[in-house]
Amino acid sequence: MGIISEKLQFGKLEKGPRNLITDVTGLRVGHFTVSAGDIQTGVTVLMPGLDSAFRNKYPAAVDVINGFGKSTGLLQIEETGSLESPIMFTNTFSIPAVQQALLGYMLRTNPESGSSESTVNTVVTECNDGYLNDIKKMIIRPQDAIRAMANAKAEFAEGAVGAGRGMKCFGLKGGIGSASRVFEIYGKRYTLGAFVLANFGSAGELTVSGRRVSVSEEADGPDKGSCITVIATDMPLSSHQLKRCSRRAQNGLARTGSYTGEGSGDITIMFSTANRIPHKDPGRITRVEYISDRCLDTVFEAVRDTVEESVISCLLHAESVTGRDGRTLKSLKDVDEYYKDILF
Amino acid sequence: MGIISEKLQFGKLEKGPRNLITDVTGLRVGHFTVSAGDIQTGVTVLMPGLDSAFRNKYPAAVDVINGFGKSTGLLQIEETGSLESPIMFTNTFSIPAVQQALLGYMLRTNPESGSSESTVNTVVTECNDGYLNDIKKMIIRPQDAIRAMANAKAEFAEGAVGAGRGMKCFGLKGGIGSASRVFEIYGKRYTLGAFVLANFGSAGELTVSGRRVSVSEEADGPDKGSCITVIATDMPLSSHQLKRCSRRAQNGLARTGSYTGEGSGDITIMFSTANRIPHKDPGRITRVEYISDRCLDTVFEAVRDTVEESVISCLLHAESVTGRDGRTLKSLKDVDEYYKDILF
Amino acid sequence: MGIISEKLQFGKLEKGPRNLITDVTGLRVGHFTVSAGDIQTGVTVLMPGLDSAFRNKYPAAVDVINGFGKSTGLLQIEETGSLESPIMFTNTFSIPAVQQALLGYMLRTNPESGSSESTVNTVVTECNDGYLNDIKKMIIRPQDAIRAMANAKAEFAEGAVGAGRGMKCFGLKGGIGSASRVFEIYGKRYTLGAFVLANFGSAGELTVSGRRVSVSEEADGPDKGSCITVIATDMPLSSHQLKRCSRRAQNGLARTGSYTGEGSGDITIMFSTANRIPHKDPGRITRVEYISDRCLDTVFEAVRDTVEESVISCLLHAESVTGRDGRTLKSLKDVDEYYKDILF
Amino acid sequence: MGIISEKLQFGKLEKGPRNLITDVTGLRVGHFTVSAGDIQTGVTVLMPGLDSAFRNKYPAAVDVINGFGKSTGLLQIEETGSLESPIMFTNTFSIPAVQQALLGYMLRTNPESGSSESTVNTVVTECNDGYLNDIKKMIIRPQDAIRAMANAKAEFAEGAVGAGRGMKCFGLKGGIGSASRVFEIYGKRYTLGAFVLANFGSAGELTVSGRRVSVSEEADGPDKGSCITVIATDMPLSSHQLKRCSRRAQNGLARTGSYTGEGSGDITIMFSTANRIPHKDPGRITRVEYISDRCLDTVFEAVRDTVEESVISCLLHAESVTGRDGRTLKSLKDVDEYYKDILF
Repeated sequence: MGIISEKLQFGKLEKGPRNLITDVTGLRVGHFTVSAGDIQTGVTVLMPGLDSAFRNKYPAAVDVINGFGKSTGLLQIEETGSLESPIMFTNTFSIPAVQQALLGYMLRTNPESGSSESTVNTVVTECNDGYLNDIKKMIIRPQDAIRAMANAKAEFAEGAVGAGRGMKCFGLKGGIGSASRVFEIYGKRYTLGAFVLANFGSAGELTVSGRRVSVSEEADGPDKGSCITVIATDMPLSSHQLKRCSRRAQNGLARTGSYTGEGSGDITIMFSTANRIPHKDPGRITRVEYISDRCLDTVFEAVRDTVEESVISCLLHAESVTGRDGRTLKSLKDVDEYYKDILF
Repeated sequence: MGIISEKLQFGKLEKGPRNLITDVTGLRVGHFTVSAGDIQTGVTVLMPGLDSAFRNKYPAAVDVINGFGKSTGLLQIEETGSLESPIMFTNTFSIPAVQQALLGYMLRTNPESGSSESTVNTVVTECNDGYLNDIKKMIIRPQDAIRAMANAKAEFAEGAVGAGRGMKCFGLKGGIGSASRVFEIYGKRYTLGAFVLANFGSAGELTVSGRRVSVSEEADGPDKGSCITVIATDMPLSSHQLKRCSRRAQNGLARTGSYTGEGSGDITIMFSTANRIPHKDPGRITRVEYISDRCLDTVFEAVRDTVEESVISCLLHAESVTGRDGRTLKSLKDVDEYYKDILF
Repeated sequence: MGIISEKLQFGKLEKGPRNLITDVTGLRVGHFTVSAGDIQTGVTVLMPGLDSAFRNKYPAAVDVINGFGKSTGLLQIEETGSLESPIMFTNTFSIPAVQQALLGYMLRTNPESGSSESTVNTVVTECNDGYLNDIKKMIIRPQDAIRAMANAKAEFAEGAVGAGRGMKCFGLKGGIGSASRVFEIYGKRYTLGAFVLANFGSAGELTVSGRRVSVSEEADGPDKGSCITVIATDMPLSSHQLKRCSRRAQNGLARTGSYTGEGSGDITIMFSTANRIPHKDPGRITRVEYISDRCLDTVFEAVRDTVEESVISCLLHAESVTGRDGRTLKSLKDVDEYYKDILF
Repeated sequence: MGIISEKLQFGKLEKGPRNLITDVTGLRVGHFTVSAGDIQTGVTVLMPGLDSAFRNKYPAAVDVINGFGKSTGLLQIEETGSLESPIMFTNTFSIPAVQQALLGYMLRTNPESGSSESTVNTVVTECNDGYLNDIKKMIIRPQDAIRAMANAKAEFAEGAVGAGRGMKCFGLKGGIGSASRVFEIYGKRYTLGAFVLANFGSAGELTVSGRRVSVSEEADGPDKGSCITVIATDMPLSSHQLKRCSRRAQNGLARTGSYTGEGSGDITIMFSTANRIPHKDPGRITRVEYISDRCLDTVFEAVRDTVEESVISCLLHAESVTGRDGRTLKSLKDVDEYYKDILF
């Protein structure tokens, strides 16, 4: 659960009931974790809904903060403004295995794809967990991705789990983090959630809710690694509006201390669960509803605050992990007393 | 009028009644032309409608094929996906004078802009007519732009008029050109029109409807200059869809023989007259209607064909003009017998 | 070999000795083809040089004409302005298998990647050959990609081979095509070559060197499919210059009749073999040489002309193929007498 | 002068001698200020060097964080990767007057532009100072821009001066701010400086070096306005590298509390004074020197830190100003005791 002490503030908007991206109705997250000596890695999946994302796509957008990364499927989201598969997360070298699994899953559940209908665009994202994980072993198999999908539920663990198992963040143990906000526009209540696979930042730079944290960590080094950010909302936003919103994830990451390193794959995917787009041409004009651009400022705030909090929540949830060649990444709670009891 | 002989074919879609961009209801075009020895220049305006573009904006998009140009106002179209002023055309060094006039016009007709409401984004585009026009004289004054607006009507001249007066195209007399198409989607009839200020292409490269035209012209040189293209339609297209459509203007320009020169400012602006966007937040969710992406192929064809035809129509309408230092640009009709009677 | 009769002209620049992309020194192309009833598919590889692309990267750029595609590795080319692996081509659903093979090859030949050095970015592109090939069988295995690499040489076949085996182009048999140009700048001779995997265009739209070709083909339909274009040169061009050059591939494709369909993945990758970029920081300032932007117009022409010719060369080389469900795609030479003897 | 107490830390890099962008050799800044009741506005210019920017251009790049703005000249910087004029700053409605002046200045000092050589690209940026300034009066005349140029020197004032006179930042008095850093790479010392025209942020959001500042200000409202950021360095960086660096300005702005409002024109221009680019084709290959991408992380840090500090420096230098309709924007020093003596 994503409950963080009120000692830490991330903006003024109200938090969602779980303070997780799954506060957006329909979303589920599943992990598959491998932890065995030199192998500290995994797969995570974000399922956007219970029905087929291929048959009813999600308005979506991508923002590439720094494109030193190997994630697949972003090109078509950008062109069509839509997402048509779950989003998977894994280590850099496991992209082919996980994509094979996701492709198989999509074709099984949407047999028309690649036959009577067009091929499906599968989204697999990655960070390099090579500090703690012997990444060249390529231990992840397609069935592990399927297991992550089978594990998907609205309540999910943050920290050193799933694809986050081996990740490093500000010289500390990184991984999975999430947060959410609820707010009202035109008398209607909306939810927005963020989710990060955090594997970025250099040790001396960490800033928690404005407080610079002193981390004397041998694992220090340049701000490499990556951060995959996914933002979801039930607000009716067009892909053009989502694109503008997704650009604000950088504000949240910047507040945690990142200068967005040269070797970092910092990518944001944002989608809306409103105004689903039918794959088959409905043969008529489609009516959709949108929020006015004048209301976007609240959404921008929510993006910034949930992304910042997601990174910190990841650091607060992650336990210390020892992996490849006996290297250890410590939990934030283990290096700074201040954060010992901040989570409950 | 834009009637071209059937000897020249530009695709298979049906032409609009005027074969001009003003076949899209509400659009008007006005010219102000200066022709006096070394001065061969002018101003042209495209008025998108009779009411205020500021109060009810047009969904819009920009595609920059090659950005060696000084046009203003594109940034905000790109960000907001909307157009909120008429589009003006002039020579490169007259941008400030024309922008001053357009700004004054917008503030007079929308006094709330810059007071209770945000400032208005004015769109002024340019090509360099320096071959025939003594551009450094900066002869265009703000009132000339106002006169172009006063002259705006649905029937308008093509060729060496308005901002097109001094322009050069494939070593021949260039300037203003336009074309339109009508087509049916879901049983409803739509109109799409293109409009170009054509000042690009090198003499040996001209291709008219597939036929390479031999132009032995002393005015030859690299494919410099520029081409400003505007495309309008009454189809309900989102700014994201308009962006994708606008990218196809390049296909039309390429078919006329351009390799898109390094020093060329080749810019496309596209807007829809459906789904106008109120400046003031309506205080509620907005319902809009869109065509399915599956129908865009017909729109892409129409964009390509009208842009290609607009350039050729410009060349067929432009009369030979003598200007700066006694230089002459000849009409296509004067250099190739084949095109003598193609226009009627 | 790429010899086309002089009846067909594609611009005025001189052709390279092979009229293939491999006229650029160091480049090799290899195919692996599967042709067995319902299975008509394959893998093709473009090897940029004999040494490691990871250790000495190529300045590179990407232009996405229409991003309805699943190619991987483009993000990092865009961010870093460099290419660090061979470029592979296959059908849409074989991306994971081919990427697995390419990743394995890169790690074997660059064992430092993912250990002491950063992970490698592998580039795998695709078109959907589902009209002739039972794509869902996913017949391509990693070893097939390795075989394509083993087959790589400077002389290579065009037409219905390798990844091009099942491709459709303008309702005809498509596949692999290539062309090259040589030209002089500042007294030095340079070579530029294009290479396409052509799987786009609708039957009625084909234009061969300005001549509209009448194809009455039951395989007609919208301009779907895709076109992957690779352009290589030995000119010293920066990644910024390469980006501008790559945008001109669209001009070449447009001249063959494409309106760049909505469901098409039309992607261009361009790289230079000059000014290789060392992976390891050399610990000092790097001196490089560049051509002035003023010389780019010749390069733009060469890009346009080689891309146009590559598509037509593909159509002229491809033999008729019968595949999935007994469907046949005819060779251009079999549908139009005019092209019977144009190739020799 | 830009001396800020050591109580405020902005990163760990060493500050330049003036802590101003003019620590980069050759740069000068000039202001022209109008302060008279309802008129509180001005013009500022950043002169990149003593010689002609047209004849020897600067490698440059643009990053648009949010494009709700009317700045001109960005298109051509983006396309060519070069800057060829001084950069001017003014209020939104004074763009035409200032551009007219800058154009005149460039043509006087480069008479070949628009005659034997191509036209010059003039860069004029803006923010809306309408809260304190009666912007519709359009009080700025071309000669005021010329005066700003005449005033340009290495020592310049920050705060409520020049174009910054009427600007609002986080509900406080905004305007002009600057900062610089020096650092060593490969044993050579480089300088990087930032300069902002800060007119953004909502009152409750201000964060000064991690400390949230409570501002109870009637001038509060959404994060509108804009922020123009210019970054200069004497490091040899390519336009591609500058583009990547410029993207990090957003990190600096984010740390001051911005969520990058919907109606904000947040634009970054970055240029290098090394590797000047001759306007005239030198008729030979050009040799240039570049820093390895591996060294960019230090540059990214410097960008982030100087941009953050520039905004805070602006707030610390700006005095309270009363303007249009008697409205007052208070100085940060007048609303929070903590900042009273931080500047000396």
